[in-house]
Amino acid sequence: MLQQQKTFSTNEPTVSEYLYDCLYKEGITEIFGVPGDYNFSLLDTLEHYKNINFINCCNELNSGYAADGYARVKGMGAIITTFGVGELSACNAIAGSYSENVPVIHIVGAPKTTVQLEHKKMHHTLLDGYYDAFIKIYENITAYTAVITRENAEIEIPKAISIAKDTKRPVYLLIAIDVAEQKVTTREFVTAEKSTEEKSLKSAIDHINLMLTKCKNPIIIPDILVLRYGLQSKVEQLVDKMDIPVATMMMGKSSFNESHPNYIGLYAGNWGSNEVQKIVESSDCLITIGAIWSDYNTGSFSANLNPLNIIEIQPTYVKVGMSVYENILITDSLNELLKIAKKKSTPKPNVHFPYTSSVASLENKISSNFYYPRIQEFIKEDDILIAETGTFAYGISQLRLPKGVIYINQSGWGSIGYATPAAFGASVAAKDKRVILFTGDGSHQLTTQEISSMLHNNCKPIIFLINNNFYTIEAYLNKPNKTHYNDIPNWDYTKLVESYGGNSYTTKVYTNRDLDEAIKQAEIQCKEKLCFIEMVCDKMDAPYMVHNIHEMVKQM
Amino acid sequence: MLQQQKTFSTNEPTVSEYLYDCLYKEGITEIFGVPGDYNFSLLDTLEHYKNINFINCCNELNSGYAADGYARVKGMGAIITTFGVGELSACNAIAGSYSENVPVIHIVGAPKTTVQLEHKKMHHTLLDGYYDAFIKIYENITAYTAVITRENAEIEIPKAISIAKDTKRPVYLLIAIDVAEQKVTTREFVTAEKSTEEKSLKSAIDHINLMLTKCKNPIIIPDILVLRYGLQSKVEQLVDKMDIPVATMMMGKSSFNESHPNYIGLYAGNWGSNEVQKIVESSDCLITIGAIWSDYNTGSFSANLNPLNIIEIQPTYVKVGMSVYENILITDSLNELLKIAKKKSTPKPNVHFPYTSSVASLENKISSNFYYPRIQEFIKEDDILIAETGTFAYGISQLRLPKGVIYINQSGWGSIGYATPAAFGASVAAKDKRVILFTGDGSHQLTTQEISSMLHNNCKPIIFLINNNFYTIEAYLNKPNKTHYNDIPNWDYTKLVESYGGNSYTTKVYTNRDLDEAIKQAEIQCKEKLCFIEMVCDKMDAPYMVHNIHEMVKQM
Repeated sequence: MLQQQKTFSTNEPTVSEYLYDCLYKEGITEIFGVPGDYNFSLLDTLEHYKNINFINCCNELNSGYAADGYARVKGMGAIITTFGVGELSACNAIAGSYSENVPVIHIVGAPKTTVQLEHKKMHHTLLDGYYDAFIKIYENITAYTAVITRENAEIEIPKAISIAKDTKRPVYLLIAIDVAEQKVTTREFVTAEKSTEEKSLKSAIDHINLMLTKCKNPIIIPDILVLRYGLQSKVEQLVDKMDIPVATMMMGKSSFNESHPNYIGLYAGNWGSNEVQKIVESSDCLITIGAIWSDYNTGSFSANLNPLNIIEIQPTYVKVGMSVYENILITDSLNELLKIAKKKSTPKPNVHFPYTSSVASLENKISSNFYYPRIQEFIKEDDILIAETGTFAYGISQLRLPKGVIYINQSGWGSIGYATPAAFGASVAAKDKRVILFTGDGSHQLTTQEISSMLHNNCKPIIFLINNNFYTIEAYLNKPNKTHYNDIPNWDYTKLVESYGGNSYTTKVYTNRDLDEAIKQAEIQCKEKLCFIEMVCDKMDAPYMVHNIHEMVKQM
Repeated sequence: MLQQQKTFSTNEPTVSEYLYDCLYKEGITEIFGVPGDYNFSLLDTLEHYKNINFINCCNELNSGYAADGYARVKGMGAIITTFGVGELSACNAIAGSYSENVPVIHIVGAPKTTVQLEHKKMHHTLLDGYYDAFIKIYENITAYTAVITRENAEIEIPKAISIAKDTKRPVYLLIAIDVAEQKVTTREFVTAEKSTEEKSLKSAIDHINLMLTKCKNPIIIPDILVLRYGLQSKVEQLVDKMDIPVATMMMGKSSFNESHPNYIGLYAGNWGSNEVQKIVESSDCLITIGAIWSDYNTGSFSANLNPLNIIEIQPTYVKVGMSVYENILITDSLNELLKIAKKKSTPKPNVHFPYTSSVASLENKISSNFYYPRIQEFIKEDDILIAETGTFAYGISQLRLPKGVIYINQSGWGSIGYATPAAFGASVAAKDKRVILFTGDGSHQLTTQEISSMLHNNCKPIIFLINNNFYTIEAYLNKPNKTHYNDIPNWDYTKLVESYGGNSYTTKVYTNRDLDEAIKQAEIQCKEKLCFIEMVCDKMDAPYMVHNIHEMVKQM
């Protein structure tokens, strides 16, 4: 089926205006980035463009992380960097977006067209007269790359955005400084809309129906791609109709309303809860939706699942047992599944959630057996939680999230330092929501400066930082866990936050009672200002899942 | 000619021990980096390896910059990062080393060999089961890449190091976590040593001789590759023998002893001194050594030089007028040139150096017409100066450096944020020298955390930071120079430095008198501690070269 896109409203737009029109239509109202001389024309236009604001970050890696965090909340993000130096600093963030299916539009300002054609040895290049090294780099970590000209802008820009939307991956647009200011040549972008192969769908549904009819204790596992393709409510309808248990995995946490009575908790193979593991692994029919079978989702491949019992609903195919049915769009397969789904009268498992109560004394030094239950109590509906790839990622994943909570964790790519700028991006994306960041000293030191961007953009996240002078998670992931290379300099974090200027509530706490008090304060103060709670903890204090992981590491 | 390398002394080394042996032989005694679970085996070995220390940085980009700064002082640098997330964060730094001919060995720890062969979807990968995306990225920005195995280690490691030495470019070594711990298989690395083609050399020298005999006012311009190939003393011998004027360009500053009576200053086309421009452009014979004809070296291609009058001595060839003589190693061409060079009785030009005296009042607000002459007075023999790619890069380039000063500026790649971590690297490389960093608030915000690494490694640089809440250089490089996107949040920089812990002298100064006093203090305090001087300046205060550039930009 062919669909013709409308031309945009702006009268004779320039290439950059046209680009911003396209991005605004996708809901983008902020673009992150860092100025650099090859992106001046892009930024000069943006400065006067009424629907989108440019948000300065302290560096390009942080901009990329912020755009990724923003996209996880709003559906799509964008960054503008300069050629060479700027774009390469953002590589890691964009590769992370690729790895975890986050659509980010990376716009790069390049040297003047004539300068490129003349092979001049310009700054921010490899000084060899060539201009293609960096786009070649990006071909490896994006779903599409294009060099924009005035003639191709009305084809390449919508094409790139459409690919980003279909694949939920980043794309890369290179725009020379002179091209950005040129009037676009009017073109018609005609796209072949992807569609489902009806016979394939019917066969898949027949097969699923057979399996569902026979099975005794089915379970639903929605995962990361449910989040990315925005299918949460469809999945909830399915659960309500079938009335069967639901578990989530690390990457897909918050893809299901965890306050739902059918939610049984996180499944993570040998890493996680024994109860959940037993229920999931003894199920004779696992309906997985948008799952990625990575090490973090399977407790380092300790998941003991029989592939013959698995129904996999994926973005473009369905797999039932060992039969693959191709060319099926996920919305179609879910809609059909909803039609045939029947209520199964399976007994509801009575599971225990790990952090529902605490017995730790308030007078004790801060420890995870106190603060996870306290955080469980603290979080509320519609919060946005961001957990760094450290011990927090494991503990927070075991909390039971209230309805509407968005949980952000980079548990596939796992780049330390991600969470702070991502929390900035999420704060910009959802100005009216409470954003709560959980990070550790090691991770925070990589990208600390984005606290400044939060403050200067009047964001008011609540930040929990574990200070124990140590990369704790790294120590648990290795056999010798007392190595010096995991030591971290001891910073005065509250002073650091204050040095960035702006309005903040900062406190450094040592006991469970102080932490309890600080959380109460933050609950009030967060309406007015950024809240920063530095928690001084023991080096090896960690939630039980981290101890489980270390046991597995020792046996390797 | 074939040369056989000796096997190393360690008895049955593992792959990582063998690698460290090779690096230590090149003079590397520190390796920068960040721990990550795929490089644990590399770091566990390094922790017990007696000749090389691991130096933690706050993030991988900063590690790369630090290794680059270290290499510019010691001749070669190295970093260790983890797979995917770590290595991609360092991309920009490594591309910078490539662009500016700095040999850095980038060692990446990868997932276990069997995990790769089984195409498992591991964290820090693109979750597609493939493991080659990142090495493909690095092929674009390094001179060599290799996947190390126990069988090829004794061939690939020396080969990669040898290429780094020959080309003065970074190389990339990928070592799986299990491979790093395996015993190497003994192999013999046989390398074909590069040599000069004698006939080509003779023809070139004959041609040069003809030109030198005829010319009336020859000038020597040594540039960046003189620094990289360590040819400073040979160039000075040539100058002494011919007794003719010497100018340098932006990228090659400190490739010649600027206290030498024949030094006439910096040549930068229309950007720089009119006097020097006149002398250089009216010369009938320019002997350039290791020059790169980039925009920054030529005042954005405003250099008006007649190619017929240029003798170019390059690492592997010589060009005389329009004749190219290939396959000539630079040491051979310089040696032969030294033999034929004769004293030329040209009158010594009487040039004025721009920052030799100041008339600014001590009571005034700090301004560049005061602080450049003051810094000129302050710097002394054998200092290491690092100037950030901001206004400082232009002003400092016009100072006359005392003997033995090493000047570090990334004026080709020009990545803002480079200077702070590079100053850390230089401080580690030359513990007994005075390291002086000149940076601006905008640049510093990108990579500020490396001040923490300086403090925690007991480095004692003197740091000058211009605080004017603005990316000043960006404003001058654009026509509209009052855009908001160049605004920078105002940090309390002295408080920031204090928040990193450690021992420091910090001060914030507003007037020329206060700055003068702070410099006097720093001269004393730097023996004991890191010194940090925050200079509050006007947004648009800049050295005259920056104003020259803006005039050119306006006319574009």
